[in-house]
This record gives sequence, structure tokens and C-alpha cells, in this order.
Amino acid sequence: MSAAAPPAFEHPVRVYWEDTDAGGVVFYANYLKFFERARTEWLRSLGVQQQALREATGAIFIVSQTQLQYLAPARLDDELRITVQPLQLGRASMQLAQEAWCGSQLLATSEIRIGCVDEASFKPRRIPTAITSRMNTCLP
Amino acid sequence: MSAAAPPAFEHPVRVYWEDTDAGGVVFYANYLKFFERARTEWLRSLGVQQQALREATGAIFIVSQTQLQYLAPARLDDELRITVQPLQLGRASMQLAQEAWCGSQLLATSEIRIGCVDEASFKPRRIPTAITSRMNTCLP
Amino acid sequence: MSAAAPPAFEHPVRVYWEDTDAGGVVFYANYLKFFERARTEWLRSLGVQQQALREATGAIFIVSQTQLQYLAPARLDDELRITVQPLQLGRASMQLAQEAWCGSQLLATSEIRIGCVDEASFKPRRIPTAITSRMNTCLP
Amino acid sequence: MSAAAPPAFEHPVRVYWEDTDAGGVVFYANYLKFFERARTEWLRSLGVQQQALREATGAIFIVSQTQLQYLAPARLDDELRITVQPLQLGRASMQLAQEAWCGSQLLATSEIRIGCVDEASFKPRRIPTAITSRMNTCLP
Repeated sequence: MSAAAPPAFEHPVRVYWEDTDAGGVVFYANYLKFFERARTEWLRSLGVQQQALREATGAIFIVSQTQLQYLAPARLDDELRITVQPLQLGRASMQLAQEAWCGSQLLATSEIRIGCVDEASFKPRRIPTAITSRMNTCLP
Repeated sequence: MSAAAPPAFEHPVRVYWEDTDAGGVVFYANYLKFFERARTEWLRSLGVQQQALREATGAIFIVSQTQLQYLAPARLDDELRITVQPLQLGRASMQLAQEAWCGSQLLATSEIRIGCVDEASFKPRRIPTAITSRMNTCLP
Repeated sequence: MSAAAPPAFEHPVRVYWEDTDAGGVVFYANYLKFFERARTEWLRSLGVQQQALREATGAIFIVSQTQLQYLAPARLDDELRITVQPLQLGRASMQLAQEAWCGSQLLATSEIRIGCVDEASFKPRRIPTAITSRMNTCLP
Repeated sequence: MSAAAPPAFEHPVRVYWEDTDAGGVVFYANYLKFFERARTEWLRSLGVQQQALREATGAIFIVSQTQLQYLAPARLDDELRITVQPLQLGRASMQLAQEAWCGSQLLATSEIRIGCVDEASFKPRRIPTAITSRMNTCLP
């Protein structure tokens, strides 16, 4: 990452009972919840409230592709840091890298593809340009 | 229960990894998922498809009160039976008893109050009479 | 509540996509997740880390009874405040009142009974006295 | 697929309120729950009970990689079919293709990598050969 690049956005997540499974660790699907929370807070940090955006424009963001590697387990009470790093921005979609960390240990890495669609038809639509211009500032 | 009373409706639920927590047992909130699945199948057995009902009438059923006792834990791979027994039917609400069983062991008992509301306003509305007449046949 | 009583413990919860259902509101079972998070943070505020407690003593807290009233729905992006107010403390169990608020609106109220059990046998055991003495300071 | 290849294993999944989100469709993380349920039932169809396997040998299966494409949304009351098709079997891991279908519509495709690990150390261990020999019969 070049010197001028902003650091990835980070969101803290605490592991609660609800997140764990009988293996004693965080259930694999729940990382997708953590990643979604972090994306929501990243959007909020850019001034985008998804519920308000939807009511005003009918646009919602959906996930179209996910790719995850699970490297180490997290356990009850662990404090995780979830990162969001946009890799590519298109007119109606974007590609993000997201990671889950516990202290200095990398737990999971992902690439997530997000699309902007109309809430009624689920057909692709252009991301409002006011939003993409703010997202552009986060590109590496 | 009198001889003429129909037996409570039963719905089978298998315990998967997603349902368990780091205590090695089913997470307490997930019994509410199991109870909801069984209520949905009980409604379906009476000819009520909730998605179709909503599209046709704007009516949705919501939970207004729950009371649960947890008696014994369930574990991965357990096969549960979830019961639904209506206790009382009103114009816009109903009271149900629900239980979770594993073999001959009672795991959890509940009383659940359901209301019928308008999907937009969440204001109470009358349960369609075609539905209440079918529900009446399930009363003890 | 008398003038000398400490205010109820509060924990903030943001509503994410994962918490909502197709009714557009928070799914009823998920309030039990919010209540559990707040209880965990209340315990932490008293110096109790559940994972550490379990490793040191084999004691875990389980929920034995819940009673909830749902008064108003919460929606995506809402900021909730979840309260914890102990009502009664026994040797091996406690009774708590918990509420969910959004701004000045009360969304849900509950009474929750918690038991302390051995992690292997799930048999009741005494709550460590160092913990109950700290909990006592929270009683109304 | 050659004439001699067995068809992919299928497991039915009904969409309940718990599975949906405020977009009116199944929440993206929940497909990982559906895929896990189908894998569990596929293992069961091969005579493998995971809880019994763990108690007998200390071996558990964990997910190490997932790759998903989301093609079309599912809604409340939809009846899905989840497939399991092993692609490759190693000594301590396997690669599976899984799909979610609603009627003739493909909703989601995935490739999932599963590892066999020791429940205490989470270190890789050989899949019991009695199991791999049965899994081999499912290869395309």
C-alpha cells in the first residue's frame, strides 16, 4: 500500500454466546454478519445510511459474491477488528477486501462483491454518484 | 385433554451446528426460531401461507408476548419435536402453548401470544374469519 | 426506585441487516440476543469474564426462564439501548429485568431468570461469592 | 457428468421468517447455514453422525474456504433444494460443490473446502478411512 493510501476502515466486534457453536468457536457463517456490520459502519462513516438511502431512492446494496479463507478460530469474549478495504468501484457494483483480526492474529480474509439494485425488482442500478465519489477516496 | 380434543400439532426439528453455542447446547434464543417454524407449519397445515396471505390482504402475524421455561438442553444431531396447541382465539390475537421435546424428555415449554397486524402500520386487525374458523378446530 | 438506587446498566446495540426479517423489523428472537449481549457486558462491568470464569471454575450461566412483551418494532439502522436491572439474587440463580429502548420509545420488556450451572453436568451450583457481592451493589 | 456418476445429494430447506431480512429475501449469510445443514445430512446419509464421531474420535469437520455466487433471491415460504457434490477428497480435507435451487431456478452456487481437525487443538488430522471410502462413492 502506497504512503498516500488511507488505512483500511476498522470496526470492532465482540464475540458473544450467539456467535459461537458447539465447537467452542465462532460459527463460520457469522463472519459474514461481522463483515456486513463493518460494511454498514464504513458506509455510515461516508455519510450513507442504508435505510434512509432506500427510502429516498429505492436503492439497496446486495452481496453478489463472497470468497473467504478461515485461518484461525475466534472464541467467546474475543475482541475482533473487522476491516473494509475497497478494491474496485464500478457504476453499479464494487469489490471489497475484508479481514477479521484478533490482536495480531489474522482470523479470516475475504473478497466480497456488492451490487446496487432496485429494492423492488432487484435489477442493477447505478450507485448514486455522491456516494461513489466518497468511496473513491478509500481506494488504495 | 378430553377424548375429543385433537392432539397438538407437531413439527420435527433437527439440531445443526448453527443452533448450538459454545456451551455445547442449543442457544436459548434459537428455541424461538424452532417455535416459529412449527407455528408456520401449523398455519400451513390449516391452509394458510403467510407470504400469500400478506400479498392478498396485507395481514401479518407478529409475536406480542412470550413466556418460556428451559428444562433441559438439546445437543448437536438431536431430533426435536415442536408442538403447537392453541389455547385461546380472539378477533385479532391468539394464545398458543408450545413445547420442545427430545424423545420422551421435555426440553422447553412456552406460552406465546400472537397478534394479527397490518404490515404497513403494525396496527391490530381482525384475523380473516376463514382462518379463525379453521383454527377453532384445534382448540382443546 | 429509591434515590439511592443505582441506575440500570445500559448497553448500546445497533440494528443491522442480520437482525431484521421480511416484515422490515427486528426478528422477535433477536431481542434475546441483544439481552444476552447486555448481560454479558453487565457481568464484564462487574469484572466477570465468562470464558475466564468457565476455564477457572467450570461455572457457566444459563437462562432458565424468559418472559417478554414486545411493544413496538425496531428497524434497520436504529440505535437501541438495552438495560439490565437485577431484581433478586439467590445462591445459584438470579432474576433480572431487561428492556430495549429506541430513543424515548420502549420496544420490549422482559424478566429473565439465570442459573449458575456446572458446564459438564448442567447441575446448579453456587455463584462464586466474589461475584454475588458485586452483583448485590446493583440491586434496586 | 458421466452416466455412471451418482446424482448430487439433495436436502430440502423451507424458508422461514428467521432466514429473511428487511430486503424481503433470505439474508446472504444464511445460505451458509443451509449448505451446512445439507452437508450434515449428506454425512448422515453416509452413516456419519458428527456428534458421535467427535465423542468417539475427537475429530470434527471445519470449513476452511468458501466461495459463493448469489444469483437470485429466495423469499419467505420458498422451498429450496440444497445439493452436495464432492469434487475432491484428500487425507484431511475435501472440496465440495453446493447449490441452492428453488424449483428450476438456481439461486446460489458455491465451492466449500472442509478440513478434518482435532477438536482440542484444531490441528489437521486424517479423515477416518471408513468415512473416506464411503465418500469416494459420491465422487463424479
